[in-house]
Amino acid sequence: MATIRQRIAGRSLTPGAKLPSVRGLAATLKVSTSTVVDAYERLVAEGAIHSRPGSGFYVASETTPLSLIDVGQRLDRAIDPFWISRQSLDAAHDDLKPGCGWLPSSWLPVDGLRKALRTIARAGEPALADYGSPLGLPLLRQLIARRMADRGIEATPDQVMLTESGTQAIDLICRMLLEPGDTVLVDDPCYFNFQALLRAHRARMVSVPFTPTGPDIELLRKALAEHRPRLYITNSGIHNPTGATLSPVVAHRVLKLADEFGLTIIEDDIFADFEQSPAPRLGAFDGLDRVIHIGSFSKTLSASVRCGFIAARSDWIEGLTDLKIATSFGGGRLAAELVFAVLSDGGYRKHLEALRLRLSAARRDVGAKLKVLGIEPWLEPQAGLFLWCRLPGGLDAADVARAALARNVVLAPGNAFSLAQSASSFLRFNVSQTTDERVFDVLQEALKDAKGQN
Amino acid sequence: MATIRQRIAGRSLTPGAKLPSVRGLAATLKVSTSTVVDAYERLVAEGAIHSRPGSGFYVASETTPLSLIDVGQRLDRAIDPFWISRQSLDAAHDDLKPGCGWLPSSWLPVDGLRKALRTIARAGEPALADYGSPLGLPLLRQLIARRMADRGIEATPDQVMLTESGTQAIDLICRMLLEPGDTVLVDDPCYFNFQALLRAHRARMVSVPFTPTGPDIELLRKALAEHRPRLYITNSGIHNPTGATLSPVVAHRVLKLADEFGLTIIEDDIFADFEQSPAPRLGAFDGLDRVIHIGSFSKTLSASVRCGFIAARSDWIEGLTDLKIATSFGGGRLAAELVFAVLSDGGYRKHLEALRLRLSAARRDVGAKLKVLGIEPWLEPQAGLFLWCRLPGGLDAADVARAALARNVVLAPGNAFSLAQSASSFLRFNVSQTTDERVFDVLQEALKDAKGQN
Repeated sequence: MATIRQRIAGRSLTPGAKLPSVRGLAATLKVSTSTVVDAYERLVAEGAIHSRPGSGFYVASETTPLSLIDVGQRLDRAIDPFWISRQSLDAAHDDLKPGCGWLPSSWLPVDGLRKALRTIARAGEPALADYGSPLGLPLLRQLIARRMADRGIEATPDQVMLTESGTQAIDLICRMLLEPGDTVLVDDPCYFNFQALLRAHRARMVSVPFTPTGPDIELLRKALAEHRPRLYITNSGIHNPTGATLSPVVAHRVLKLADEFGLTIIEDDIFADFEQSPAPRLGAFDGLDRVIHIGSFSKTLSASVRCGFIAARSDWIEGLTDLKIATSFGGGRLAAELVFAVLSDGGYRKHLEALRLRLSAARRDVGAKLKVLGIEPWLEPQAGLFLWCRLPGGLDAADVARAALARNVVLAPGNAFSLAQSASSFLRFNVSQTTDERVFDVLQEALKDAKGQN
Repeated sequence: MATIRQRIAGRSLTPGAKLPSVRGLAATLKVSTSTVVDAYERLVAEGAIHSRPGSGFYVASETTPLSLIDVGQRLDRAIDPFWISRQSLDAAHDDLKPGCGWLPSSWLPVDGLRKALRTIARAGEPALADYGSPLGLPLLRQLIARRMADRGIEATPDQVMLTESGTQAIDLICRMLLEPGDTVLVDDPCYFNFQALLRAHRARMVSVPFTPTGPDIELLRKALAEHRPRLYITNSGIHNPTGATLSPVVAHRVLKLADEFGLTIIEDDIFADFEQSPAPRLGAFDGLDRVIHIGSFSKTLSASVRCGFIAARSDWIEGLTDLKIATSFGGGRLAAELVFAVLSDGGYRKHLEALRLRLSAARRDVGAKLKVLGIEPWLEPQAGLFLWCRLPGGLDAADVARAALARNVVLAPGNAFSLAQSASSFLRFNVSQTTDERVFDVLQEALKDAKGQN
């Protein structure tokens, strides 16, 4: 019953579709035919399916609403991408959440935001009350183009379209480029919300192991040849969750393979402002031909003010603009005005300098305390907020996360980031959310609990 | 060539699909086979298709990006929904745009917004810098639930989910309920962006004529029986573009038919705050069972601050929340805080009272001036900013709109709102954007030009 219900909700069985025959399904699931008959009859009673005498069973024609949870395999809650996002977003302000993906609000440029709000409070009426233009605030797009140029990415302001967030940026690109059933390549491990987003597009996902300098090139070639993915979504500045940095050689090889296999790449660069010195960007090497570059300001400026962007080929920006208007009408003009006000103030640069130092110290400090517990970072990241760490003694991170959650601490277990489920002994730590000593006490207890279960 | 290219971009020919045979296509299009061969060869040269010797022509496996413009029939620019939206959004602040769908910023509660911005500038750090919770700011959801109760719609705050806009609200619901190829019912005429949005979902659209008291019930029954649509999207408070108001009898009959045919209804109520006295709501009659109610604050508070909401059955809110997180992560917390600050201030009620009087006077005044030009309203709306008007002498509104645009005045010709293309002699006027005398001068000239073309 659960199997069928899941296939209906996940749309692999669509309304009106014929169900497998009783005998066929019994053979596949290795159960008796009477078990299948029983399950089908109960689903008929629920109205989920109906029988046509002499013909078989069919999915009811009133569609079951799409449930993202059911699209994929139903996952253990502790490693379910949706559950971890909601858990972190739902957590109270002062809950301990070393598993979440953002800075505490006190680490963000709150004074700059207050100043920007007061400035906008005196701005002209259109800034306060009108829709934004289709591409978004020209001054901010000019500034973004200049900031990208600092990382070697050449784009005119007209190749930049503002969005409501980095996530919406990726979503719009997927809407433009993907059909249900298309294959998309992600890193193993990768940011877990990529998986959630791709489930919403009903894309097939394939992953390639990530190394300390980028994706494993040999396995990338193999995956491209075998699965012919339409898209590859990756981070190049600072990789989430590993904190790794793309090397110039790997960037070159990835792009050569992209050319050979007709692959489009989304380069998600939302951690750019954490960098001490800019790493190579695929968008810089490629000149925004096959690469679409996206960014946002949620990680270093404010997650409350929603604003992201896409930089891409002009013909793609045209189509993306229509899609944006059709699905969210204008962009948030006020959000763009606020981001522009903060970015163009000298205080933001000072904030970033202080933030990088603070993160660097936190990475060192948290790394040392984790080592005491036998938790070892996979690499020492050059920048950013994450430490991707291996647990001692082959412990299962899902067990540790469950034990920590029972003590109100939200962790991010490795397999939530791993399509291949290859990261069961990893946890991602956000060092900025791991400063409270209680986290380490709880970790110690959770490790003990998990060991008990082994 | 254009035919094939359009079918590829609009995805009715998918990557790898076989093209019609040369002879077959020549017969269909009533052209010579050599013309088709010629076109196919040029498409091969462009890389859009390729030939497999002895087998035929195939769409290249690298997908052409989805182009919404090409999904539908390619429309005359003057009545193309995308073009009108972009034209209005792109227009300079002081351009004349009686065709646009929003108030001038000077008619919005700008002083209230300034005050709210100063208040938020003093708020705690989380309001300024943190992500919103999955459902969105609890205080605002409570306030929305109370405001809906005033219109007879009962929903708990947990049945309300905030979105970035009314458009995003509808988009998320479509993502949950629609499959490509599903049929959706709209009004004839209806808000043109519904058509754009539904194209993005590759839904099939069917329309039912709208009467001064709601959809034509007999034709609605017929359309439901014939097309079995999954969804019906409509406005009930104040209908866009007609300004009509749903009657209780029609509301009752629509819901009876919805029950009979298993139809889900999206009730888009973004004009609610313009009403002098509340009209019947489908969501109130139905108790949010088959009806999903959506709203936003773009029309009466600010379009620059993006915030909308969905009120629906609890089990649907669950699925919608996952979809929202997957496709745009959090909602805009700052936007929600600002909307809450403005709504909960006594000034907003006073603003609405003044706004309704001002609009009422503008409807009277603009209506009288249009009558002088022979342009007659289809009905006298009880409230709102629109007058849906018939042109004199069977003139084509697209001709008039083109002639006006040549004089930098953006009009909204009827067929942009009409799937059935039944409104060629109508224009929608936004009375708040029609106060400048120059509009009437340009209209008079444009009518003359259009007459010359007849």
